[in-house]
Amino acid sequence: MMNREDFRTYGHELVDWMADYLENVASYPVKSQVKPGEIAAQLPSSAPQAPESMTEILEDFNKIIMPGITHWQSPNFFAYFNANNSYPSILAEMLTATLGAQCMIWDTSPAAAELEERVLDWLKSAMGLPTEFEGVIQDTASSATLCAILSARERATNFQVNRSGMNDNRFRVYASTQTHSSIDKAVKIAGLGQENLVKVGVDEHFAMRPEALAKKIQEDKEKGFKPLCVVATLGTTGTTAVDPLAELSAICRDHGVWLHVDAAFGGTALLLPEYHWMIKGIETVDSFVFNPHKWMFTNFDCSVYYVRDAQHLIRTFEILPEYLKTSTRGQVNDYRDWGIALGRRFRALKLWFVIRSYGITGLQQRIRNHLDYAAWLESQIETHSDFEVMASRAFNLVCFRFHPQGEDHPETLNELNASLLSHLNETGRVYLTHTKLHGAYVLRMAIGQTYLEKTHVEQAWEAIQKTAKNLDQHPEEKATGDRP
Amino acid sequence: MMNREDFRTYGHELVDWMADYLENVASYPVKSQVKPGEIAAQLPSSAPQAPESMTEILEDFNKIIMPGITHWQSPNFFAYFNANNSYPSILAEMLTATLGAQCMIWDTSPAAAELEERVLDWLKSAMGLPTEFEGVIQDTASSATLCAILSARERATNFQVNRSGMNDNRFRVYASTQTHSSIDKAVKIAGLGQENLVKVGVDEHFAMRPEALAKKIQEDKEKGFKPLCVVATLGTTGTTAVDPLAELSAICRDHGVWLHVDAAFGGTALLLPEYHWMIKGIETVDSFVFNPHKWMFTNFDCSVYYVRDAQHLIRTFEILPEYLKTSTRGQVNDYRDWGIALGRRFRALKLWFVIRSYGITGLQQRIRNHLDYAAWLESQIETHSDFEVMASRAFNLVCFRFHPQGEDHPETLNELNASLLSHLNETGRVYLTHTKLHGAYVLRMAIGQTYLEKTHVEQAWEAIQKTAKNLDQHPEEKATGDRP
Repeated sequence: MMNREDFRTYGHELVDWMADYLENVASYPVKSQVKPGEIAAQLPSSAPQAPESMTEILEDFNKIIMPGITHWQSPNFFAYFNANNSYPSILAEMLTATLGAQCMIWDTSPAAAELEERVLDWLKSAMGLPTEFEGVIQDTASSATLCAILSARERATNFQVNRSGMNDNRFRVYASTQTHSSIDKAVKIAGLGQENLVKVGVDEHFAMRPEALAKKIQEDKEKGFKPLCVVATLGTTGTTAVDPLAELSAICRDHGVWLHVDAAFGGTALLLPEYHWMIKGIETVDSFVFNPHKWMFTNFDCSVYYVRDAQHLIRTFEILPEYLKTSTRGQVNDYRDWGIALGRRFRALKLWFVIRSYGITGLQQRIRNHLDYAAWLESQIETHSDFEVMASRAFNLVCFRFHPQGEDHPETLNELNASLLSHLNETGRVYLTHTKLHGAYVLRMAIGQTYLEKTHVEQAWEAIQKTAKNLDQHPEEKATGDRP
Repeated sequence: MMNREDFRTYGHELVDWMADYLENVASYPVKSQVKPGEIAAQLPSSAPQAPESMTEILEDFNKIIMPGITHWQSPNFFAYFNANNSYPSILAEMLTATLGAQCMIWDTSPAAAELEERVLDWLKSAMGLPTEFEGVIQDTASSATLCAILSARERATNFQVNRSGMNDNRFRVYASTQTHSSIDKAVKIAGLGQENLVKVGVDEHFAMRPEALAKKIQEDKEKGFKPLCVVATLGTTGTTAVDPLAELSAICRDHGVWLHVDAAFGGTALLLPEYHWMIKGIETVDSFVFNPHKWMFTNFDCSVYYVRDAQHLIRTFEILPEYLKTSTRGQVNDYRDWGIALGRRFRALKLWFVIRSYGITGLQQRIRNHLDYAAWLESQIETHSDFEVMASRAFNLVCFRFHPQGEDHPETLNELNASLLSHLNETGRVYLTHTKLHGAYVLRMAIGQTYLEKTHVEQAWEAIQKTAKNLDQHPEEKATGDRP
């Protein structure tokens, strides 16, 4: 078994591995090329009885595990949304893991609670959010959105559902047809039912149509339903559409409906003043979530959740068993009452390291670079006769498809693009993912990895054109579609 | 801003800090001695605009943050339950943070999904759990228990609540009066209501009384309630009582009720064959959770959740937006459908490192040491005329109080023990917490830190006796109670 000196030795060995990895990550195949079962087949079927040396373990890590890793920190990773780390963030994670502090309440690590409060105040101010917002770090936007919907449920019932459960459910939740799947999950968990999540239509930019929302709410009220909560998105997952917050917040105010803003992806852009148009109407928003673990260079998990009135959140989740009673209660933030899980990691540390190491100007610079590169790619696609942009671009995500001149059959175009994506990802040189828009198979390219430079975008665009051209010249490959 | 070479340099600097910290952690005051607001007062009120050097950041970390840290990895930490790390676990966390892989589905990191499946199979077998169990890593037992209650809700309604929400709620959930507060939280979240969590009486060992459960279920049925789920605990938070699983599972089988086992703390002991008596009746259990992040030397968060039929879990949480459709679906485990959050860290890696580095025999040895030390402390207390053991001991937690001869007034004893705890924790030499049992204020001493040796327990016992004696000789200090 490891002793202190081993730990020091292997710790140094790993730091070199880590630095080398991040230096060379662009040379790995971005998406792991293994087949289902290939990794498992190399792992013994039962645990070792005797201790094994770290040398053996690390050998297996390199030999067995690494080929099965998809390299999210590669500058050639353009899939989904980025889930970035950064040098200062990784350093903070090393300290967090070593301290191993359980940050459920103030008493169990005062510095963690007070740093969390302070750093979230920093961000609130840097992002132009209302001063009365109070923040807490959650694991994911899925959990934060669930917190919002539960708080709405409890506010609307004066905490009666918490006490006696749900009866005669007539509540309705509203979100656009482009909303994230976590909203579906949240209404199910909260006992509201997926049928009571009303999907509101979108405009040509895939943003929620306020008049459609107003109409749905009005109709529901007439039918005896109780409008509970609206989820507005700043940066949808499909195309990064921005719902019109000012109009939506006016509607919610009129109807006394909880307004939750899911800015999981787009929130980071609020560090740029030129994006503050997105939060016109924020004054009456009830809750707001954004993920520094996406585009703010902070290791997953780190999802920042702000609420206008923390009492709704706390009263929704509060529990107070004897063993958690402390003499500081009431003077401090005991964050265990601000969410689902009792146990909490010291997540504020990495956020503090990242913000200080970059400074607000450094963060702004890197985000603006990504936006510039995305604008460049968009212009390349727009001027190319065989490609087309498929959604208006709000941030650093470009939605496009291959559309060779003269080929206008929708199904053929879908197959062609599915095949293009599959071939591209098989090269290992880039990793993109897809969505569907009005039935069309569309490629998504998210340009936001921490250490990405313009050259990576240029190379990716080269690879896309070359793969598409090859596909067009060898149409027999079209039929393969996505790999089985 | 940091570059690659800075990262390497500071990474090495931190490894030395980390190794030094763990070497010297016993010398820090275990419970942070700061006052509310003391840390926040030292932090600027707004984020820096310009980048700051890592040297400055680390200076502030040492100067401002460290005094506000409660040292959970100190061998003098006896509070709550331990939340341990260990050398191999920290090394794995360094790699996890560096890879930054988002493990929501198989495709986004095949090795993470397959290692998770394999390592949980290892543990299942090493712990004597049924072969048909399938596992998934959750963040906390709070989340896992919520998953269990939601799965029970959906199984009982044929997934109708997920579809159309809760109506005419008549469901009831049962747990002992000693159950963890997360069960209360879960029934609230799931829309069942806290009033429908029936607290069942316990025996003289604080274990659930099966006949009391059977009676409650019977009475509820007669009143038209629908018994939904029983939560049995192996190792309650107050005293580590073990509910009688064989009897409870027979009752649940008879009534068709979901049986969830909360072994968050006690589960680790199943690595020892001499503890397998606890899981007599496990064959018909529906779900089971235990936390390697407590007593199995694996960094928080790592909570292992097993289910007898994964389809209930998956069908409860499944969502399938277009952008998550992959060609491997159905052939592999996409763990995003096995819980609340979509995003997932590569948590299996630390579990793999810990199990291999210790080996099963190494884990057993360390756990048995803790049990031996606890038995030793218990015998010391039993034979001391001024102390008494307050609950039967099932694992490594000793519940006791100071009870000077001749002092039998309950309130005085409570004040005396609250004062003892407060004074002890103020010394910074140990950290214990309390609970209440039948109205009596009781000290809890959890003997389970990874690198604890018998000498730490001996020193703690010395400190307890000395502080108590001092308190008894200077009764004017009794009145202070817990610090304001």
